[in-house]
Amino acid sequence: MQPHNILLSFSSGSLLRDINEEQLLEILLKDFQTNRPGIVGIGEDCAVVQGRGNDLYYLFKVDATVENVHFEAETPPELIGRKALARALSDIAAMGGEPLYALVGIGISKDQKIEKIKKIYEGIRSLAQAFDLLIIGGETTVCEQLFLVVSLWGKTEGYKPVLRSGATDGDGLFVTGVLGGSFQSGHHLMFMPRIKEGKWLAAGRWAKAMMDISDGLAKDLPRMAKASSIGFEIDFDAIPIRGGYTIKSALTEGEDYELLFSVAKEKEDKLIQSWPFDVPLKKIGFFSQRAKRNFPDEFRGFDHFQKP
Amino acid sequence: MQPHNILLSFSSGSLLRDINEEQLLEILLKDFQTNRPGIVGIGEDCAVVQGRGNDLYYLFKVDATVENVHFEAETPPELIGRKALARALSDIAAMGGEPLYALVGIGISKDQKIEKIKKIYEGIRSLAQAFDLLIIGGETTVCEQLFLVVSLWGKTEGYKPVLRSGATDGDGLFVTGVLGGSFQSGHHLMFMPRIKEGKWLAAGRWAKAMMDISDGLAKDLPRMAKASSIGFEIDFDAIPIRGGYTIKSALTEGEDYELLFSVAKEKEDKLIQSWPFDVPLKKIGFFSQRAKRNFPDEFRGFDHFQKP
Repeated sequence: MQPHNILLSFSSGSLLRDINEEQLLEILLKDFQTNRPGIVGIGEDCAVVQGRGNDLYYLFKVDATVENVHFEAETPPELIGRKALARALSDIAAMGGEPLYALVGIGISKDQKIEKIKKIYEGIRSLAQAFDLLIIGGETTVCEQLFLVVSLWGKTEGYKPVLRSGATDGDGLFVTGVLGGSFQSGHHLMFMPRIKEGKWLAAGRWAKAMMDISDGLAKDLPRMAKASSIGFEIDFDAIPIRGGYTIKSALTEGEDYELLFSVAKEKEDKLIQSWPFDVPLKKIGFFSQRAKRNFPDEFRGFDHFQKP
Repeated sequence: MQPHNILLSFSSGSLLRDINEEQLLEILLKDFQTNRPGIVGIGEDCAVVQGRGNDLYYLFKVDATVENVHFEAETPPELIGRKALARALSDIAAMGGEPLYALVGIGISKDQKIEKIKKIYEGIRSLAQAFDLLIIGGETTVCEQLFLVVSLWGKTEGYKPVLRSGATDGDGLFVTGVLGGSFQSGHHLMFMPRIKEGKWLAAGRWAKAMMDISDGLAKDLPRMAKASSIGFEIDFDAIPIRGGYTIKSALTEGEDYELLFSVAKEKEDKLIQSWPFDVPLKKIGFFSQRAKRNFPDEFRGFDHFQKP
């Protein structure tokens, strides 16, 4: 869909609940698009800016994590902080990058206990240490609804960041880990961002197109297909589902934070043999010029803005 | 005050309203301090990371602007967006930097009109254009209390960013513009970030220490004095006050977004003669090893977290 059409189809009184997140971003950011060389802007997991020197790319990301949206008031505070950073790290992983530096902002009510805020930051710090990430700044402000903002600066060096747009006809479609049940199982608070795996896939030129699954396969895969201007075929029996959950949960609930990527057909076997990580790797379909770019209607991904 | 003392002096049940913003940041970020070479972290207007090549420094900033804190529900939406970006730009200006790239995030309720959000982004876009700043990414999420998050990436090239810590004995203390009445006059929505002025002061090696005045001179100047380990003497009659407002307003209300900086005594006259900008420049005092680092008690700056 073109941003222009969206604009024409809503009256000035339309509310956010009438559109989805993608349409909103298209409306807001259509005039921000840049064609400057070396810069990839809107529509990828991170913005990319070419650095100085040969084959150095900087990745740039900001992400907000909000009470009653991404966590509950009762969520243990260490896990709130952990999730805020892990979500942003997952976007760096999605392009095959290494995280370098982070800024952390927080909006908090005056009635929060200092102890809670300290624990939130302990959760951030302990995950940052695991990835040798430096937290180099912070900002605090007052807000009734608790939120955290993480701004990340990462890089790829010696290889290019993997975009969503690189999939071509015949590529295999792969996913890491298992999907579904993220909220109920607590995975959405405890997931390990696939930084190592993403970097390996990018640096080794395995992945041609890549993203992380945050809104559910049924919503995120069509985004990759659209970016790559290609359709896809899914082998529904091959989708790795978390034990005790359904295929619908695996496709639509979101917050899986697993990597979704395309691999050239001739490299598929070699990839499966070479995969050095504990996390499962699974081929779940392939890209095809002749196939559709969407899932059947009964599978719809998670959308914060969708009614009701 | 040392972070350690602060921690000891609050019980586990203490609330945020019992401490000020500075104490909170010290508690949260004390373990994040980095001693890696080429990196300046917590405590400056922006984080600084040395780039590749000679005399290239990157500046990195995240800032949140929140409804009922930084603007009202009735504030014209273009001005909400404008302010969100202008605040972050002012922090780049405070170090003498040039802005390069921005990411914009927004937290909004589903019941907001699309039209309002579009206008917020128009406010952001029009200010970005004035500074040749590229908006290269965005993020949206749901939040009942409207907030905007701006993450900025800037640089200084051919000269170093000006820190808060460079003031020494005898330096003149200067301020741009006029202070006070920012909220009532609407200045807090309409101010022009002092990017040009800050860059000129830094590139020409005029300013030895610099910051922007966001919480009021009476709160911000002691921060600079503390960072520089030096006291100051103020000529209260010299403080430039916005027409119709009081000296107390000029010292304590905050949101002036003017530059505050120190200049070597022998360069003061030359600076005043060379100043090429329309915005007023005023010497308001000097730094002194023998003077105190604080204002009298009746002048207290703005603090979001202070009771009540």
